[in-house]
Amino acid sequence: MNAPAQAAHLAPKIQARPVTQAFLDKLKSRFGDNCSMALVVREQHGRDESAFAPVPPPSAVIFAESTQDVADAVTLANEYKVPVIPFGVGSSLEGHLLAVQGGISVDLTRMNKVLSINAEDLTVTVQPGVTRKQLNEEIKSTGLFFPIDPGADATLGGMSATRASGTNAVRYGTMRENVLALEVVTASGEIIRTGTRAKKSSAGYDLTRLFVGSEGTLGVITEVTVRLYPLPEAISAAICSFPSIASAVQTVIQIIQLGVPIARVELIDHNAVRMVNAYAKLSLREEPLLLMEFHGSPTGVKEQAETVQEIASDHGGNAFEWATTPEERTRLWTARHNAYFAALQSKPGCRAISTDTCVPISKLSDCLLDSISETDASGLPYFLVGHVGDGNFHFGYLIDPEIPREREIAEALNHKLVSRALRLGGTCTGEHGIGLHKIDFLVTEAGAGAVNMMRTLKQALDPHNIMNPGKIFT
Amino acid sequence: MNAPAQAAHLAPKIQARPVTQAFLDKLKSRFGDNCSMALVVREQHGRDESAFAPVPPPSAVIFAESTQDVADAVTLANEYKVPVIPFGVGSSLEGHLLAVQGGISVDLTRMNKVLSINAEDLTVTVQPGVTRKQLNEEIKSTGLFFPIDPGADATLGGMSATRASGTNAVRYGTMRENVLALEVVTASGEIIRTGTRAKKSSAGYDLTRLFVGSEGTLGVITEVTVRLYPLPEAISAAICSFPSIASAVQTVIQIIQLGVPIARVELIDHNAVRMVNAYAKLSLREEPLLLMEFHGSPTGVKEQAETVQEIASDHGGNAFEWATTPEERTRLWTARHNAYFAALQSKPGCRAISTDTCVPISKLSDCLLDSISETDASGLPYFLVGHVGDGNFHFGYLIDPEIPREREIAEALNHKLVSRALRLGGTCTGEHGIGLHKIDFLVTEAGAGAVNMMRTLKQALDPHNIMNPGKIFT
Repeated sequence: MNAPAQAAHLAPKIQARPVTQAFLDKLKSRFGDNCSMALVVREQHGRDESAFAPVPPPSAVIFAESTQDVADAVTLANEYKVPVIPFGVGSSLEGHLLAVQGGISVDLTRMNKVLSINAEDLTVTVQPGVTRKQLNEEIKSTGLFFPIDPGADATLGGMSATRASGTNAVRYGTMRENVLALEVVTASGEIIRTGTRAKKSSAGYDLTRLFVGSEGTLGVITEVTVRLYPLPEAISAAICSFPSIASAVQTVIQIIQLGVPIARVELIDHNAVRMVNAYAKLSLREEPLLLMEFHGSPTGVKEQAETVQEIASDHGGNAFEWATTPEERTRLWTARHNAYFAALQSKPGCRAISTDTCVPISKLSDCLLDSISETDASGLPYFLVGHVGDGNFHFGYLIDPEIPREREIAEALNHKLVSRALRLGGTCTGEHGIGLHKIDFLVTEAGAGAVNMMRTLKQALDPHNIMNPGKIFT
Repeated sequence: MNAPAQAAHLAPKIQARPVTQAFLDKLKSRFGDNCSMALVVREQHGRDESAFAPVPPPSAVIFAESTQDVADAVTLANEYKVPVIPFGVGSSLEGHLLAVQGGISVDLTRMNKVLSINAEDLTVTVQPGVTRKQLNEEIKSTGLFFPIDPGADATLGGMSATRASGTNAVRYGTMRENVLALEVVTASGEIIRTGTRAKKSSAGYDLTRLFVGSEGTLGVITEVTVRLYPLPEAISAAICSFPSIASAVQTVIQIIQLGVPIARVELIDHNAVRMVNAYAKLSLREEPLLLMEFHGSPTGVKEQAETVQEIASDHGGNAFEWATTPEERTRLWTARHNAYFAALQSKPGCRAISTDTCVPISKLSDCLLDSISETDASGLPYFLVGHVGDGNFHFGYLIDPEIPREREIAEALNHKLVSRALRLGGTCTGEHGIGLHKIDFLVTEAGAGAVNMMRTLKQALDPHNIMNPGKIFT
């Protein structure tokens, strides 16, 4: 197993561009205390949850409090050709927040107001620093909810920028389907709006979806309008364990092919179950599990659950364990969301390198099983979780960051996994984005022509290449 | 009522660019019999279903039989800076197909093969000339269907290019949500692919959705991969008549706000019912109707129908008439789809000018009722149909094309309607596109900044402005 090219990615190429004192002075004079040059603040804004080696932090951090703040910071940066990296809660996984070309970080967490709740239209407009949990808390009284749930309590701005999704996407779609409109500060500092609150539109180019998933490389998202959904009349969650990953996956494939409107269907392998049990003091069966949730009317939920139970049982699934009270459900989903932290705790001092491929549902079994054999053979501890109803899953390889060889093995495994997913008609990233880590994979996936088109768009909208440069493509 | 600016739009500004004999000779030599310069063929390709006055037709029509044919035609056109207008079945409604800057038409109807059916993944890949009815016919044996239904038997290429939707969108989404991947010939004649068959992806800019809705102005779509859905176990359709449009609309608003997963909910006003009765020899009650369809399990469908009946009855809706056999359903939906032709027949020699706004659902009543009063006051015959579950509706104004005053009145009504929709937070087009007709409205809706951004993207991807020039923006 030898993948020097991939391993090299973990120490990203640094091409810091000059940030003059004159620029920093102007920034300071405009933003005062909301411009920090303290090392600790800068360092905190120069990293994310990826396993990249540290790079020098940004030269300054602006704490934006309004769209105008963002526009002024970007205008100034554009004038001085200084990179700008938008920052939410720092939960990115592919190196999006690293200042590989220097520049400044624009922290959006103080722009955290829910601006307007339009319950009658099932929409809400928020500032980019609002997190998904905060949003659901603030709209609680409306009987509506925002389903997109990437695990981390990410900001809506960050989730838009990486085209996030997560556990509920199998039923409710991703940020791609759920963002209706945006306000954006462009690379020249102009404030534009994309989309309207109408549910559909054929009015010109789909700028909304051009910015959703653009990873901060085209502008800074300063307002997000998303769709909301009525809280289901009935919700029930169930766990079902399986004799093998294969049988769990076959169950999922059949659920999807039959069109069962399941709201969540998560695969958790026996490693992850073991880690979660230890971390959260649970006693889940240490076998591959499907963790499922059904939304609908009481009869609808019952019917879905019966269908799924039948399919699961055909594939050797054990009796369902039900969680019908909100408390039980929270316990289950907390366990799922804690898989990452549980894994980190299972090997003190380790880091988890998280993969993120997504394949057409019929290829899920092929892609997963070969990757599991390969990973088992590597000897590296790992866990596997997946939003399998969408064909999307994550291996977490646990490596000791002090041992370069472990990094190399993990990167080589990831390389094989992604290559396999691409061969099977899938994508190199289901929901984490390209960042610094998957630049080469994007070319393999999309082809040089399509990537050149992306680069052309970037050059047209950001001629000085100030918006999060070095991400998505070089 | 005076709207000279709008009326003027109906005779589009012609800015024909030179098409040299040398270019036409090269075209003829490359395409032989698949290049037609016969006037009747050119005229047929120089118009659509819009009410625009005729403009001179394109100089030649290429009947493309492969992606390479398209690439060669575009490469040549780009070399000679000649406009290219992609052509499907010609059902566009906003002047998309008019050769206002001259050039050639590329007819894609011979590229009408279903390339691969991936039933296990619920996807299908087709050439752009495949029509929606043909597609559903060819996948019949799989137990799957393609839901998007704009009324006309449009091509998948054309539907992608205009971001089409129609009756089923309230449940299944529009082309925006259902196109997974494209093959595109760019303005320079290069062939690129966007997207994969994976259900979701965060891999770079969303080129798929940049081309969906680009109205032929960025490239020619030569392959389309769309999502399919399992045919519902049970389908039932019902008609319910209401004492007023207001009560019908209130029923719809409540259905949507409750999250009932209704598959279709169409409003048909008393005028349209009258026209359809006469045309199709039906005896529907000549009152505002909701035509609905429910998809799901037998219990699910029953439950949805009961909920909807209760809501309808609260708003004065009459007893439902059910259509549960496929034949009865076909009869009902044929009546709906024939509304346009029924209207044309109701006033011999007339043309229908079709409006197309979409508003947030809570504003539907405000938008509709004021527009109805205005239209009633105008004295112009009209009908009203709407995909009201999405907040999208169409007035059809019946005008005598020989009477300029009628055109002016219709355009003034449309102007007031669109302006109202925009004031209410809606869009100037829910599904027909901008074309030639709504260029000014797009600026009002999106703002000069966003439209400038669209123009920047266009210039970057099509520097010689050969792809369907003069549409979307000037």
